[in-house]
Amino acid sequence: MLHLDIQNYDLKDWKYLYRADGEAQGSYNWHMVSDRKRIAILGSTGSIGRQTLDVIKQFPDRFEVIALAAGRRTTLLAEQIHNFKPRYVASALMDSTLESSIESVSAQRIPMEELVLAPDVDIVLAGTGGGAGLVPTIEALKVGKPVAIANKEALVMAGHLIRKALQEGNGALYPVDSEHSAIWQCLWGEEDHDIRRILLTASGGAFRDLADEELAAVTPAQALKHPTWNMGDKITVDCATLMNKGMETIEATWLFDVPMERVEVVLHRESIVHSLVEFSDGSVKAQLGVPDMRLPIQCALAYPDRMPKPPAPELDLATAGTLNFGRPDIERFPCLNLAMHAGSEGGTYPAVMAAADEIAVERFLAGEIRFIDIATVIEHVLDEHSKSIQSSDPVLAEVLEVDAWARKKAKSVSIAGSS
Amino acid sequence: MLHLDIQNYDLKDWKYLYRADGEAQGSYNWHMVSDRKRIAILGSTGSIGRQTLDVIKQFPDRFEVIALAAGRRTTLLAEQIHNFKPRYVASALMDSTLESSIESVSAQRIPMEELVLAPDVDIVLAGTGGGAGLVPTIEALKVGKPVAIANKEALVMAGHLIRKALQEGNGALYPVDSEHSAIWQCLWGEEDHDIRRILLTASGGAFRDLADEELAAVTPAQALKHPTWNMGDKITVDCATLMNKGMETIEATWLFDVPMERVEVVLHRESIVHSLVEFSDGSVKAQLGVPDMRLPIQCALAYPDRMPKPPAPELDLATAGTLNFGRPDIERFPCLNLAMHAGSEGGTYPAVMAAADEIAVERFLAGEIRFIDIATVIEHVLDEHSKSIQSSDPVLAEVLEVDAWARKKAKSVSIAGSS
Repeated sequence: MLHLDIQNYDLKDWKYLYRADGEAQGSYNWHMVSDRKRIAILGSTGSIGRQTLDVIKQFPDRFEVIALAAGRRTTLLAEQIHNFKPRYVASALMDSTLESSIESVSAQRIPMEELVLAPDVDIVLAGTGGGAGLVPTIEALKVGKPVAIANKEALVMAGHLIRKALQEGNGALYPVDSEHSAIWQCLWGEEDHDIRRILLTASGGAFRDLADEELAAVTPAQALKHPTWNMGDKITVDCATLMNKGMETIEATWLFDVPMERVEVVLHRESIVHSLVEFSDGSVKAQLGVPDMRLPIQCALAYPDRMPKPPAPELDLATAGTLNFGRPDIERFPCLNLAMHAGSEGGTYPAVMAAADEIAVERFLAGEIRFIDIATVIEHVLDEHSKSIQSSDPVLAEVLEVDAWARKKAKSVSIAGSS
Repeated sequence: MLHLDIQNYDLKDWKYLYRADGEAQGSYNWHMVSDRKRIAILGSTGSIGRQTLDVIKQFPDRFEVIALAAGRRTTLLAEQIHNFKPRYVASALMDSTLESSIESVSAQRIPMEELVLAPDVDIVLAGTGGGAGLVPTIEALKVGKPVAIANKEALVMAGHLIRKALQEGNGALYPVDSEHSAIWQCLWGEEDHDIRRILLTASGGAFRDLADEELAAVTPAQALKHPTWNMGDKITVDCATLMNKGMETIEATWLFDVPMERVEVVLHRESIVHSLVEFSDGSVKAQLGVPDMRLPIQCALAYPDRMPKPPAPELDLATAGTLNFGRPDIERFPCLNLAMHAGSEGGTYPAVMAAADEIAVERFLAGEIRFIDIATVIEHVLDEHSKSIQSSDPVLAEVLEVDAWARKKAKSVSIAGSS
């Protein structure tokens, strides 16, 4: 009962061979034969990138690191190059250690946007944070490469452009976020028009149980402790504000081609049910697992197969015991509504929101503004944006323009009472 | 992303037309066009049969009742004939009301085994309890008819014969039990060899919280009150003893072609998660819904489509709040182990067990033996069976022979201390 989106494979660029078992009436069994998938990792030194390498290490006969791209952590990148011997390397910074590491494996240094186009890249894992992954993702999709996307900001900023590139290149987009991977898995073997609702689960973030006055006094150190997931800094703060969940609602609309009114957020403290889909006939499907990003990463890399062993401890439901569900507190966590609203508006709104959020989180982590001011900054920037001219279908240059504008604006928003 | 098991359709006998949208490289979109599915309901006056008619009533443009088969409830059958105007009727009993009802709609009276073979029967819903549905199910499958099977005893007694008939006729078997429907739905778009474990959920039955001494004193009236499901008498008692769950483990092995060691039972009081599948990569999928049999019934009738509206109230997870999971208490409910053991042994064991259970439950409902004696009777009959000659691959006559033998034996087992 294999589901294979064969139209999502550009057979010209795709090195795997498929053989049809010749079943009657157009029903074929497709098999992936021989060879390893050659993976380009964008953001290899980040949390997703490191966990991707963890997964790849477990299956040396199935996966190969063909390219590594990173930003500022040159020492770690040098180490990764040493261990995985990629053919291509992209790095925002360069130093002598990194340089000699690149030389020692005879890797080629090329920009991230070009790296994804190399003919021997079979799949791109877009694991950068922020907007850095947007252009390479679009470029890869345009030439029909499958992209495993963990870079939610790219989808939030310019989901419409990513979808266009996907259609243009006849490529494929595999979700890596645990929630979207869950939805994706629930949709295998289903028809898109049967989706009634997508139910995104939210752990509620680090401060789900804090009183209002405590929320105001939250420190960056507190915000960086997530109750169930182990992730990067920016995303952990976004989890605490529920902005992460808000961005995921926008992500879901683009990944699964559903309008925002079909997306709902359900509070689920234990982060075991990663998300659910309700179908037209009232049936609900859910995907569950321990909270470990290696599971959705492996799922995306392996698609359309499932790997023969788990990358993380297995779920023991009887021991887990109790799963709780509830409604998110929109009053106390206004970022969720800000994001869903921006997603409904579409056009340049989500890009403005994502950029404003990135700066607001930076300012919070730098001790410049309070936790509760993050929403205020974003709201202020969105308000300002609504007074200027918007595009409902912005081209990339316009997206990058409002991105720059929103960052500048978000830096300058002054918050009464903050340092 | 439609999954269509096209090999499960015998296009010769199947009246639906499919058209291929001609996508590239062997990827087709199949559409079911025109016409209604003509359904034969075996056991139309039972709990499953009545709920099936409920579902059919909601979709007069999609479903049609072509045949009704029932046992002893002639008055209700007469009423159903009046309302649904079937072309064929089978009834174990006959009276003047029923006779005139059959005449009034010009229906043809034929035995259940022949009724399923009528060329204008598109799908058979096997909703009888006990062994009555076994032969018609096998006959229908042999000629390639899809069978929606709620009749778990048939699968337990002779799952190997049902699978053989399925292969011989190139027909299809759709589960109707809520647990198996859940597993089935979780497997759409998946490959069978990726199944690591099937996790059958069990509400724990009416007496999950009773102390040992209370269990001994349970009355038939108490046993007939199930905490979450509204079902027939026999199955409700089987739920209370966990024999129902035990039979479901055997059912699962045949429906999904997995060995018993891949099937586990998880206690889940709320009956909202209907079952789960754990895959080779550690990912777990679950199907959820309100506890209402019309949902799996509709799902089986509609397959490979989903119907556009739910047959029952929709699940509100946030309101449901808490879902609990645990391990079943095998000590206090020995029927679960008896069944899983019989299932592992295979051959004639499951048939002996199912027959002994049917009689033991009858004796309990008649006030002849105590609740806790049900397991004792079954165990005794199984022990006796192990001393005689068994067949590991019994033909139907042998199955029916051990069935008769086990019934006789179960009637004669005397229980110390019972009335």
